[in-house]
Amino acid sequence: MCEFRVRTDLALEAKESFEDDNVEIRGVRIDENYDNEHEITITKVVIETKNGAKAMGKPMGTYITLEAPNMAVPDEGYHREISRVLAEYVKELLGKMPKEFSVLIAGLGNREVTPDSLGPLVVGNLLINRHVVKEYGKYAMGKERINAISGIVPGVMAQTGMETAEIIRGVIEETNPDLLIVVDALAARSTKRLSRTIQITDTGINPGSGVGNHRNAINEESMGIPVISIGVPTVVDAAVIVNDAMENMLHAMSDSNSLKDMAAAFSTFKVSEKHELFRELLSPQLNTMFVTPKDIDETMKRLSFTISEALNMVFQTA
Amino acid sequence: MCEFRVRTDLALEAKESFEDDNVEIRGVRIDENYDNEHEITITKVVIETKNGAKAMGKPMGTYITLEAPNMAVPDEGYHREISRVLAEYVKELLGKMPKEFSVLIAGLGNREVTPDSLGPLVVGNLLINRHVVKEYGKYAMGKERINAISGIVPGVMAQTGMETAEIIRGVIEETNPDLLIVVDALAARSTKRLSRTIQITDTGINPGSGVGNHRNAINEESMGIPVISIGVPTVVDAAVIVNDAMENMLHAMSDSNSLKDMAAAFSTFKVSEKHELFRELLSPQLNTMFVTPKDIDETMKRLSFTISEALNMVFQTA
Amino acid sequence: MCEFRVRTDLALEAKESFEDDNVEIRGVRIDENYDNEHEITITKVVIETKNGAKAMGKPMGTYITLEAPNMAVPDEGYHREISRVLAEYVKELLGKMPKEFSVLIAGLGNREVTPDSLGPLVVGNLLINRHVVKEYGKYAMGKERINAISGIVPGVMAQTGMETAEIIRGVIEETNPDLLIVVDALAARSTKRLSRTIQITDTGINPGSGVGNHRNAINEESMGIPVISIGVPTVVDAAVIVNDAMENMLHAMSDSNSLKDMAAAFSTFKVSEKHELFRELLSPQLNTMFVTPKDIDETMKRLSFTISEALNMVFQTA
Amino acid sequence: MCEFRVRTDLALEAKESFEDDNVEIRGVRIDENYDNEHEITITKVVIETKNGAKAMGKPMGTYITLEAPNMAVPDEGYHREISRVLAEYVKELLGKMPKEFSVLIAGLGNREVTPDSLGPLVVGNLLINRHVVKEYGKYAMGKERINAISGIVPGVMAQTGMETAEIIRGVIEETNPDLLIVVDALAARSTKRLSRTIQITDTGINPGSGVGNHRNAINEESMGIPVISIGVPTVVDAAVIVNDAMENMLHAMSDSNSLKDMAAAFSTFKVSEKHELFRELLSPQLNTMFVTPKDIDETMKRLSFTISEALNMVFQTA
Repeated sequence: MCEFRVRTDLALEAKESFEDDNVEIRGVRIDENYDNEHEITITKVVIETKNGAKAMGKPMGTYITLEAPNMAVPDEGYHREISRVLAEYVKELLGKMPKEFSVLIAGLGNREVTPDSLGPLVVGNLLINRHVVKEYGKYAMGKERINAISGIVPGVMAQTGMETAEIIRGVIEETNPDLLIVVDALAARSTKRLSRTIQITDTGINPGSGVGNHRNAINEESMGIPVISIGVPTVVDAAVIVNDAMENMLHAMSDSNSLKDMAAAFSTFKVSEKHELFRELLSPQLNTMFVTPKDIDETMKRLSFTISEALNMVFQTA
Repeated sequence: MCEFRVRTDLALEAKESFEDDNVEIRGVRIDENYDNEHEITITKVVIETKNGAKAMGKPMGTYITLEAPNMAVPDEGYHREISRVLAEYVKELLGKMPKEFSVLIAGLGNREVTPDSLGPLVVGNLLINRHVVKEYGKYAMGKERINAISGIVPGVMAQTGMETAEIIRGVIEETNPDLLIVVDALAARSTKRLSRTIQITDTGINPGSGVGNHRNAINEESMGIPVISIGVPTVVDAAVIVNDAMENMLHAMSDSNSLKDMAAAFSTFKVSEKHELFRELLSPQLNTMFVTPKDIDETMKRLSFTISEALNMVFQTA
Repeated sequence: MCEFRVRTDLALEAKESFEDDNVEIRGVRIDENYDNEHEITITKVVIETKNGAKAMGKPMGTYITLEAPNMAVPDEGYHREISRVLAEYVKELLGKMPKEFSVLIAGLGNREVTPDSLGPLVVGNLLINRHVVKEYGKYAMGKERINAISGIVPGVMAQTGMETAEIIRGVIEETNPDLLIVVDALAARSTKRLSRTIQITDTGINPGSGVGNHRNAINEESMGIPVISIGVPTVVDAAVIVNDAMENMLHAMSDSNSLKDMAAAFSTFKVSEKHELFRELLSPQLNTMFVTPKDIDETMKRLSFTISEALNMVFQTA
Repeated sequence: MCEFRVRTDLALEAKESFEDDNVEIRGVRIDENYDNEHEITITKVVIETKNGAKAMGKPMGTYITLEAPNMAVPDEGYHREISRVLAEYVKELLGKMPKEFSVLIAGLGNREVTPDSLGPLVVGNLLINRHVVKEYGKYAMGKERINAISGIVPGVMAQTGMETAEIIRGVIEETNPDLLIVVDALAARSTKRLSRTIQITDTGINPGSGVGNHRNAINEESMGIPVISIGVPTVVDAAVIVNDAMENMLHAMSDSNSLKDMAAAFSTFKVSEKHELFRELLSPQLNTMFVTPKDIDETMKRLSFTISEALNMVFQTA
């Protein structure tokens, strides 16, 4: 079996890598829907068993992906619609919450690196109110019930010297929220998905996976409270696009008359041998590099508003 | 006795307010030195007793103030000298530390409000290494002994909904540093001190006191480890400068022939009556306002480097 | 006559200073309206003659002020309404423009000093399209007519070493827009107006007047094209609030029995003598300082969106 | 002859692409030196004739490249040394300047996209003095002679709607500097050069070439004054690294026994056929993407200081 699996933070892509190989996966249920009105493809991947989790390389849980090519377009009205749809799915994943609860929203990533700044930007636009609720109480605020919203931008390990999970766990212990939302930039497998996909999951995420390395997990088990994570793929690992191009090359060979012999020779290679070859060809620098679109600054501004508006819709009670 | 005391974060100024009134304070020891070479006035205020603390309105402990008019000048060489002097006094306050220790440096304040951005800027320039020490060990780093340095920028309550003290306490519980350094912008009593004074103390500080309200204390008692705080006054409360001007006015009256009668009339007022009058005259808006120099952006850049360089000197072992 | 006039960028306040003194001003016409629906007071000051200009200390032209206490409240829907009202008045000042035109929008001020960052923030949120129109043409963009919108953030003199007027004039000469819009933070006379007032004028403004000194004018005469300026007061000169407090003090004296004698003595002073006294009492540092609200970061974010949305409404043709 | 040439802003790399093909280039002179003390390789490429320019795909002029692997290391002392070396070479390119002159330093690029923010960051750290010289004169500043330094951050076309060349030309016309320095992030051909190479040239550069498209030239011809450009490669076009990997793959094939047949088949392809194949394999998205290191934020901070310190050394006269 294939030992080589390129990193993706999207369950959707993890699944696709199997479909390429025509492998069926037990314990993984997939529903795809198309929202005609908003031109959004909604895919729900539910990993139901440990075997499914092992095969997918992702923990058990629900992964909802919204894909909308128009997300890349600067249309404010359309983005408000996406916020509404996103809010619906966040509520669905939340499930049955108490009438009134407190939520901590953590904006992961590095605000100094544009494609990794999604989390910090989102938290900067939230309607934070925990301190007001604590000081004045909900009745003084003229409300029957109110959710207390707090936010944190923990920074990345190179800036803090600490695991993001350590910081968030400490903050949870001190402030006792009922729910944790983490927002982070993700790494995709394909450049086509960048900036036009939002993934919501109840499994938590690995901080820094957007641009950095895997670190301590942030999930219900490690945090002691339910964790919903919201992510947008903004980068592809540099090694991935090179790998893709080489795969394409081999594929192209088999279609070309003049190259058929070559492809025939290559076809005697095992998959593992091919990937070994690719890995040798990749310069080691590429492992510390990422690929991102040139207009990433505008994308980050727009998407961070779309997400913060959705979260404001979910947690503010009128 | 005078009930009215304008807020200052500088022990030096708290002391001065007494000298104005010719009051002697028991339990408070003061040493003033002048460093000729660097043209720095160094004042050490030691509050030794509870009575002293009550009188000063500040907790017991040591407060060291470096005052240097040239701090406001963009002379890189001179700032390096100040970093060295500052490093010396931080070491003095540290006292006897183990040969090797871990330190968490917290940059308090709001990075979005220029005069309150000192803490965040300082932490951004530190040589953070805790994650490297933990992963590779000091020997791999080619060192016999090494201090593990971590940093955090917790944000302010309006951004997080949480007390800064809650966030830092949580981070300390999870990461167990031996020492906490807090860096913050301070509020002074006098515009003359802005941007040219550094205060170091072993008593901790009240987060947000630079621009916001008093909040939970951050000190050895509340954090469970020694706390050194480093602050630079960057704002004066708007109410303070108005109060000062009015005091000056009354003072001027007694020097002016044509005003002597007026001053005489006024002199029958008790101090508390005078301050009551002033308070009435202050518009309530002023309580939510601060005064800061127009070139505060350049000052913040320069002073944040001066402080981060000093901290790098103190904690990095060659 | 009163020689002392505290600086304000608001024509509204320049007028008020006269009303205090019960002086009638020829050549100045004033209309005040109240927009019940949006709770906005709209004041139009038209300076019609050179004498009026001299008396007001402001050039001839039209000054429209929108005052809305709720502008300080973070209500997105309400801000959209203000954007609409603002767009109407900008169009009114524009007068008869060609069916299609090009506009340069200059965001004055210092992005590194929070209360001076209004202009840079507004330009950052505009829908800039001049380069697209030039490269592809309006038909390719599916439009019958389109205005070409360009934007510049010139920076302040301490950062550039150049007058803002020099930079903008150079850009106009090279790119030939039909209209210049300048957006800037202003200095008000009263803290009550901060962050809840927008002034629109066809007279241009003095760059840096928000936080810095008077410099080269930016107006139709110096730029060669019509200039509309949009400003929001975000600071008050520190000297102003001190002056105000002292005025209030003298005023209060005449109401207080125990102080009547004093006030009587003082009333023998001429206005010029009083102001001379005040000036002496002000510490010289105050001239390089400004007063601004503690929550200025949130205000700047909100107001910059309100203004950029209004400009997008005015210049985008559907 | 090879029609396919991957974009690089480095003359050094343009030359290398020929060496690969063993082509000799007339009209191009190259000197390479090694600075033992600082471990810097200094390469001077002089394009002396039009033919040389055509062959190199770069205008006639001098290109000096400093390469130092240690530039990527956060060693402040070492960076000061590089600043000194860089200052020497900038002076060499300046040639004979008048005893006293004025210089405009333009920081090109997009401050919102980390790897493109070099220019804006450099200008933010310069000692700008033109306004002071103009207002007070050099004697008041206690100097016999002084260079007037001004700076501008024009922004990128997506933000301004204008060509960077238009903005700078306008500013030059209004303020008449004797010399223009442009600082910009560059695109390299190889990831190995990122963040550890500085190129200085007297030929000007194409703004936005670091991350965006080719635009109007900024050089002595278009600006009317000498132009020195300083650049650091911070990105590689995504298409380039894919191309490289495929080249490597073909190269590897000829070394591998089991692949020799394949390589033999492929060797019958003409270069142009090979590149045609590669181009087909590249996904079109890649043309709007770039590759950059994950720690680009720290690199940008460090290198912008190194360059601004060098410029401060060159233009400040003691």
